[in-house]
Amino acid sequence: ANIVLLPGDGIGPEIIQQGQRILAAVAQRFGHTFQFESHLIGGIAIDQTGDPLPDATVTACRNAAAVLLGAVGGPKWDDPTAKVRPEQGLLKIRKELQLFANLRPIQTFPELVDASPLKREIVDGTDILFFRELTGGVYFGESGRSTSDGVESAYASMVYSVPEVERIVRLAAVAARGRNNRLTSVDKANVLEPSRLWRQVAQHVMSEEFPDVQYDVVLVDAMAMHLISRPRDFDVVVTGNLFGDILTDEASMLPGSLGMLPSASMGSDGPGLFEPIHGSAPDIAGKGIANPLATILAAAMLLRHSLGLEDEAKAIEAAVRAVLADGLRTADIAGGSPSIGTEEMGTAVLEKLQ
Amino acid sequence: ANIVLLPGDGIGPEIIQQGQRILAAVAQRFGHTFQFESHLIGGIAIDQTGDPLPDATVTACRNAAAVLLGAVGGPKWDDPTAKVRPEQGLLKIRKELQLFANLRPIQTFPELVDASPLKREIVDGTDILFFRELTGGVYFGESGRSTSDGVESAYASMVYSVPEVERIVRLAAVAARGRNNRLTSVDKANVLEPSRLWRQVAQHVMSEEFPDVQYDVVLVDAMAMHLISRPRDFDVVVTGNLFGDILTDEASMLPGSLGMLPSASMGSDGPGLFEPIHGSAPDIAGKGIANPLATILAAAMLLRHSLGLEDEAKAIEAAVRAVLADGLRTADIAGGSPSIGTEEMGTAVLEKLQ
Ligand SMILES: CC(C)[C@H](C(=O)O)[C@@H](O)C(=O)O
Ligand SMILES: CC(C)[C@H](C(=O)O)[C@@H](O)C(=O)O
Repeated sequence: ANIVLLPGDGIGPEIIQQGQRILAAVAQRFGHTFQFESHLIGGIAIDQTGDPLPDATVTACRNAAAVLLGAVGGPKWDDPTAKVRPEQGLLKIRKELQLFANLRPIQTFPELVDASPLKREIVDGTDILFFRELTGGVYFGESGRSTSDGVESAYASMVYSVPEVERIVRLAAVAARGRNNRLTSVDKANVLEPSRLWRQVAQHVMSEEFPDVQYDVVLVDAMAMHLISRPRDFDVVVTGNLFGDILTDEASMLPGSLGMLPSASMGSDGPGLFEPIHGSAPDIAGKGIANPLATILAAAMLLRHSLGLEDEAKAIEAAVRAVLADGLRTADIAGGSPSIGTEEMGTAVLEKLQ
Repeated sequence: ANIVLLPGDGIGPEIIQQGQRILAAVAQRFGHTFQFESHLIGGIAIDQTGDPLPDATVTACRNAAAVLLGAVGGPKWDDPTAKVRPEQGLLKIRKELQLFANLRPIQTFPELVDASPLKREIVDGTDILFFRELTGGVYFGESGRSTSDGVESAYASMVYSVPEVERIVRLAAVAARGRNNRLTSVDKANVLEPSRLWRQVAQHVMSEEFPDVQYDVVLVDAMAMHLISRPRDFDVVVTGNLFGDILTDEASMLPGSLGMLPSASMGSDGPGLFEPIHGSAPDIAGKGIANPLATILAAAMLLRHSLGLEDEAKAIEAAVRAVLADGLRTADIAGGSPSIGTEEMGTAVLEKLQ
C-alpha cells in the first residue's frame, strides 16, 4: 500500500518520522509492503510554493491508500486575516478527498488520568467516540461581505442537506453497534433551522435503520456542560462541523494528555487522513521532545480504517499501552517523573511491537 | 421603580418569589419604592394565550425599569420542531428590548468549590465575566429550507455588522477597566468570515479607544480547552451569540454550583433583563427545594446594572456570602450536609441583609 506523509509545520516532521517508523516496522513484522511518499502542506507549502495545498499534494493523496498528517501552522503564518493561510490546506484537503467524517476517540489512559484537570472520580473510564461532520455546515457555506446604508457586514451560511446528515449518522450508528450501542446526536434544534433538519434526518435514520441502537439528542450548550460534569455517560456522539470543532477540543482536555489523542478523517471511499489532535507546537519544534504517541496511535487508526488491518492496529495500541505501563513518558505527560525524547519514545514502542 | 417579574415555567415561580422578596426588602431597608408586576412568558404563556411572548408582556417590559425572569420551558413543550415553543419567548424578548449584551459572571465560591468537577488547584479563584452578543449572529440571520435536484437543505446565515461588534466590545472593554483590565475576544477567524470581521473591528476598537486594556484573541475551539485547563487566566471574555451560548454553558460547570449563577441581558438604554443561568428544572418544580440564590444574585445585578444601586447590589451579594459561610445549603449545593428549602433560603438571605 502507498502511504502519503504530510509532515507540515512545527513538530510535524519529528512526529511523522516516528509514525513512519512504526508503520515500516508493522509492514516488516506482518509481511506487508508500504511505500511512503512525503508531500507539502501548510506553512512550509506556502513558503516553498505559495500554496498551502499544492496540486502535487492533492494528486499524491488521491492516489494513496491513506494519508498520515503531522500538523500545520505556526506564528510565522499566524494572521487569520491573511489571504493565504496554512489551515486552508487542511480545509481544502478535507474537501478534495471528501473526508466528511472526522472520528475522534477520547479515552482516558489509566496511567495518565491524574493529569486530567477533572477529578478522577468524574473522568476516569471516559471512552467517547466523536463523529464530527467535516465537509459541510458553516465552514463551507456561501460567505462574504456586504455593505448597506454604509454599514459593513460579513456573513457565512450554515447549510446542511439531508444526504449529508444521513451519511454521517449512519457511520456513527454503525460504530455504536461495535461499541456500547449508544448514539447521541448533538444539535441546536431549538434555534437553528439546519439543526432542525439535522434532528429530523437523524431521528429518521435511527428509527428506520438502527432501531436496535439506543439513541438520544442533546443540545450543543447542554453537551458542553455534560462533557465536564458526566463524560462517562457517552458512547458515540455525532454532530455538525462547527459544534464538533468546539466539543471535540473541549473533550480533548479530559484525559489530561492531549499528546496521546489521534483522529481519523474518512470519506465513503478513497484514502482516509490520519493525524494527531494536537497542533504544531512551534514552541518545542526541533527540540526532539514532542510526544509522538498521538501520531503513532493515528497510524494505528490508519491501519484499521483505511487498510483494514485490525490486528496490526491492535498491535500498535498494545505496544503504546505497554510503554506507558513501563513508566516511559515524554515531557508533556511526565508529571513529576523523568522524561524521554521523541525518538526514544518511538524506539520504545517499536521494541514492544509484537 | 417599576420591576416586571416573568416567572415562566417549572421552578420559575418559586425562585422569582424569593427574588421579589429580597428586592422588596432592599427597597424598605434603603428607602426606595419598587412596584412589581407579573407577566406571562414561555410555556405557561403558550398554554394561556397560545403565544410564548404575549403583547401585554412586551409592553409591560418596555415600560419597566428592569425585568426579572425565572426560566422557561419543560417537557410539556419540548418538541424543538414544534411551531410554537417556550424559548421563542426568550429569543423574542431579547430582540424586542434590544438586549444585545448578555453578561455572565462565572465565579467560584470558596465554600462550594469542592463540588466542582475540576480539581481545586485548577479552578479555585476563577473569576470570569463573559459578554455574549445576544441579538445577532446565526441566531437571527436569514434562515429556511430549499430543495434543489430533489435534495432538501436547511440554512441559517451567521451575520455580524461593524456596529454590532463595536458596541459589545466597548461594553466589555469598559467592564474590563473596572476589573483586572484584561479582555479576551473569542472568534473563529481562521475559518469564518463573520469572525474575521469581528476580529478586525474588535482590534480596531481596542487599539483606538482602549489602548490601556490588555487585549488578546483566542479561537473558539482553543477557548473550549482553556476554560477547562486554565480558567483562572481569564478576566473579561467577549464573543458572538452562538460561541457565547456554548462557552458560557461550559464555564457554568466550573464552580460546581449552577444554582448560584446569575446573568444580565442589557441594551444601550431601556430595561435590562436579569435571570438565573439555570433552567426551569421541571423535575423539582413545585417541591419547594429549588435554589433561589442565582435569582437573588440576578436581583443584585438588576439593582447594579439597571437601577444604578451599587450599594444595594453589594448588600445582597454580601448577604448571600454570609448565608453560605453559615453553612446553609439547598439540596443542589448541599454535598453531604443537610439542606434547606427555597423559602428558608430566601428568609436566611433576608435576615443577613444589612
Ligand atoms: C485549523 C482549523 C481550520 C481546524 C478546524 O476548525 O476544523 C482545526 O481546528 C481542527 O479542528 O482540525
Ligand atoms: C433557550 C435558548 C434559546 C437559549 C439560547 O441559546 O440563547 C439558552 O440556551 C440560553 O443560553 O439562554
